[in-house]
Amino acid sequence: VSAMRTSQLQFHTRREAPQDAEARSHQLLVRGNYIRRLSSGIYHFMPLGYRVLTKVKAVIAEEFAEIGSSEVLLPALHPAELWEATGRRAVMDDVLFAIESKSGSFVLGPTHEEAAIHALAPDLASWRDLPASVFQIQTKFRDEPRARFGLMRTREFIMADGYTFDRDREAMRKSYANFREAYAKIFSRLCLNALAVEADSGAIGGDVNHEFMVPSVIGEDHFAECADCGYRANTEAATRGRREPATGGQRGLKEYVTPGAPGVTQAVKALVDQGEDVTQGSMLKCLVAKDSDGNTLVYAIPGDRELKLPAGVSLVSEDFFESHPGFVKGYIGPVGTAERGARLIVDPLVLEREWWASGANKADTHLVGLVPGRDFSPDEVTDLVWVIDGDDCPRCGGTLRLIRSVEIGHTFQLGTVYTARLNYARFTDSEGAQMPYWMGCYGIGVTRLLAVIAEQFSSQDQGLVWPVSVAPFAVSVIGVGGSSSKEVFDEVNTLSQLLDAAGIEVLQEDRGESSGVIFNDMELIGSPVWCVVGRRSLQEQMIEVRDRMNGVTELVPVPEVVGYVAQLLERLSQIIR
Amino acid sequence: VSAMRTSQLQFHTRREAPQDAEARSHQLLVRGNYIRRLSSGIYHFMPLGYRVLTKVKAVIAEEFAEIGSSEVLLPALHPAELWEATGRRAVMDDVLFAIESKSGSFVLGPTHEEAAIHALAPDLASWRDLPASVFQIQTKFRDEPRARFGLMRTREFIMADGYTFDRDREAMRKSYANFREAYAKIFSRLCLNALAVEADSGAIGGDVNHEFMVPSVIGEDHFAECADCGYRANTEAATRGRREPATGGQRGLKEYVTPGAPGVTQAVKALVDQGEDVTQGSMLKCLVAKDSDGNTLVYAIPGDRELKLPAGVSLVSEDFFESHPGFVKGYIGPVGTAERGARLIVDPLVLEREWWASGANKADTHLVGLVPGRDFSPDEVTDLVWVIDGDDCPRCGGTLRLIRSVEIGHTFQLGTVYTARLNYARFTDSEGAQMPYWMGCYGIGVTRLLAVIAEQFSSQDQGLVWPVSVAPFAVSVIGVGGSSSKEVFDEVNTLSQLLDAAGIEVLQEDRGESSGVIFNDMELIGSPVWCVVGRRSLQEQMIEVRDRMNGVTELVPVPEVVGYVAQLLERLSQIIR
Repeated sequence: VSAMRTSQLQFHTRREAPQDAEARSHQLLVRGNYIRRLSSGIYHFMPLGYRVLTKVKAVIAEEFAEIGSSEVLLPALHPAELWEATGRRAVMDDVLFAIESKSGSFVLGPTHEEAAIHALAPDLASWRDLPASVFQIQTKFRDEPRARFGLMRTREFIMADGYTFDRDREAMRKSYANFREAYAKIFSRLCLNALAVEADSGAIGGDVNHEFMVPSVIGEDHFAECADCGYRANTEAATRGRREPATGGQRGLKEYVTPGAPGVTQAVKALVDQGEDVTQGSMLKCLVAKDSDGNTLVYAIPGDRELKLPAGVSLVSEDFFESHPGFVKGYIGPVGTAERGARLIVDPLVLEREWWASGANKADTHLVGLVPGRDFSPDEVTDLVWVIDGDDCPRCGGTLRLIRSVEIGHTFQLGTVYTARLNYARFTDSEGAQMPYWMGCYGIGVTRLLAVIAEQFSSQDQGLVWPVSVAPFAVSVIGVGGSSSKEVFDEVNTLSQLLDAAGIEVLQEDRGESSGVIFNDMELIGSPVWCVVGRRSLQEQMIEVRDRMNGVTELVPVPEVVGYVAQLLERLSQIIR
Repeated sequence: VSAMRTSQLQFHTRREAPQDAEARSHQLLVRGNYIRRLSSGIYHFMPLGYRVLTKVKAVIAEEFAEIGSSEVLLPALHPAELWEATGRRAVMDDVLFAIESKSGSFVLGPTHEEAAIHALAPDLASWRDLPASVFQIQTKFRDEPRARFGLMRTREFIMADGYTFDRDREAMRKSYANFREAYAKIFSRLCLNALAVEADSGAIGGDVNHEFMVPSVIGEDHFAECADCGYRANTEAATRGRREPATGGQRGLKEYVTPGAPGVTQAVKALVDQGEDVTQGSMLKCLVAKDSDGNTLVYAIPGDRELKLPAGVSLVSEDFFESHPGFVKGYIGPVGTAERGARLIVDPLVLEREWWASGANKADTHLVGLVPGRDFSPDEVTDLVWVIDGDDCPRCGGTLRLIRSVEIGHTFQLGTVYTARLNYARFTDSEGAQMPYWMGCYGIGVTRLLAVIAEQFSSQDQGLVWPVSVAPFAVSVIGVGGSSSKEVFDEVNTLSQLLDAAGIEVLQEDRGESSGVIFNDMELIGSPVWCVVGRRSLQEQMIEVRDRMNGVTELVPVPEVVGYVAQLLERLSQIIR
């Protein structure tokens, strides 16, 4: 192997990013010809993109092997029965690509819990065969309604997914800890500031699980963080710390006529106009819902908060109000909920204020001065609101901040949630009983990582500056100041060979293009270090070494360049973003 | 990295092969736990199988990179329009997995000519951008009606597929020659006796193309080979060398009543019973067909040959005979074909005999003594029969032999067959004209290679004996004669570390199982070399080294083992099967 030359890169960079590319990473990956769109959410990986992908995959595979997980490759085509057996054919129906063919009904795997159990169960008949751990790096398919940000959310993507099988909860937790440790090493080698965040399990299921989030402007998610105690949870899972209920609410109850003011904003205005000192935060917002058993529920939360609807519950539609005249749409209040055949469920925040304004359960009328416990009594107190910036930490009482971020990995302690449903997912325990495996599963979005790394390691001015571990080339060697100069040409060649011999991946510029073209390309190819050989500096036996990550340029004596670059690369590998 | 230990292999070998496993390779790959069936033609790659797969992929990727081809990754999900634009949505309909989803109509790629053109055309606007060459190693999907022999014919499989783009036929031929050279190196490194065979282009299209065939008992195909001149062609493409037409046919014509003898076999019997010296080889078999324009054709071939029906032609059905009383089913002969409104087309073999027996075009009647040119005159002479063992070579007149074989690769000079149909597949030539690319495409069946290598490098007695380049482990180090012996245990450990330090991939047996269990497993894991450490030989400072490929065992002094093994592996790498 010798140093790669730019003339050997078969494909061009482009001047323009596609119009639909909002994210900087998306623009740069397309302009640099790393990826090309075939269809919405479906991309070709061009040679440079494939090169980065290969490096990311290698880091993941090495660290998973390091914790004793064996690499496998499970199929993408799954017989539909496989998914029917666990009930997920229905649960994940909206994202499954389904195939009806001559040879049967299939789905394209969006994840591989079922397939992994099918592959491994025959080998894991006894507790002596456990623990077992496998992983694969494989293409997945999801019929995403909103493909976006280039590789961030796609319909065909590569995941690294691990699966562990254990005899009991404690052993499962050990396997889980091993994978979390591997995750930490992987993200550190990829130079990403990935934070483990408590998460909701969604369509995968199970108890404990963590998302790995990188704070980023292109994040589609948020997590809540407490700087004091380190509590981190995504917004689905995060709760707010409760305060003491307010006591001593003495204010009298007053009724106001508020015609045409069904919403919180209008009600506040109507009440303020009549001299009341109310705000959105002192309005009690009451929402009518039905649970899965058909019970009517009234949820009450502060007017400046958003309801986090519990699973299995849905808000009632227009029809409900027409057929239930006791519930006056836009004027629902907490008083007399039981008399109307409903349960009143309130967020803890409702008890933390002395009095509230709310609807009066009759048209065009509001009440001000509703005191919890005096004027209404909740049937249940439970967390009902999305956390917001500034809420109390549920663990230590500190202050929560919401951080925009991208999910790059997810780990799940599944327990027996799948294996209990599959009669072949059993092992014989040490007492001879047939028990379901305790499973863990672990996913990293490999193609998404390219987008995240490109976003974190780029700027509008500099273009891409890849981390050393995944850069297509660690160093670009470029001659400037006259392609006609034989000295420059020779030194570019010699230095490239020396760097290559030192085990450093080099891209040697050899096309004789103008500096403008060369540096434009080089900003898109994104080597973190450039060695720029100029005629004038070469006369003084110096070469310019640019540390693009820190924006520092040094003139280095020719004989010292290789050693200097090697040390620089070592230092740059430690930069985490 | 240190030597792998058998205790770290997480999964078991199995005693029994599945009942549907006919091929030895299929049995061994399942018993050795390389693969596991998820569904018909869909397999899990277990850790050992994935290990072999990775090695095969690496050999291919290295050799393709060596000829300057860049690795890419094209999607598996293709918008249906992509396939409609070239007309192949219809042509390949019977093997395409089609998907109708919320986000549109897709097909799963069974091959990637269209996708490759889509990915590359924007980069190849000018003749200056050519030639271009890419490849990928990627999963393909075909709705195979007959999945069989394990990995031999599957519905989901891995292919290595290359695509070249050139400015004219001559340049295309150069690119083609480069890939053929890479193929030769790949198959040689994989220790396979792969022969390039002239082939028919089938659903892919184009002019010149070659299949790469490995002679094998599990072959589903045959090719014809001439030992004299090296001519090789698959049976679809092979033709037989023509001989001089016979002259001097003087025999008189005689009519026989042959009731109830419509087939060749019955007719021969009826005529022999009446004293005629006829055989199947002297019967002229006449078959009625229709071409795509609706013309009626009569094909005449010797009675002991099979008709190779030309493309676009189909034999007529029962209805035809009912509505065309001039054609008497079972008694069709060559005489008077033109009068019945049909064309008579004969194989050259028909002219090479002085006289024939055939149907008389009336019920229960045959004619004997039909002399070509006197009694009937063909409208056309063309190759109509499948070649058989012993036919003349069309190139040198030598003798053709049919060889059962497996296709492991295929290369195509596509020319402009696809690019002419796609208005975006154009470059500006040196005179400023818009021209379609001249394309080549090149495919290797990667997962199928595992089956072929396993078949060629195994036996019923020895189990698997993998070639060094793809063996999960080049060497297995095994202690026998007492797991209780600390000396044996220590030497197994020491030798494993020494081999590992010498860059040799080692599997170290460390489970303390019985010799029966160990050797049974080792035959399935299939290292080509075993180092067997026994208590007795160790006392004499000797270790048994087994060359499993040649069936030779040597006692080697302990200090010489590493060097001996390294040289042995070098020699074994040269064995081609």
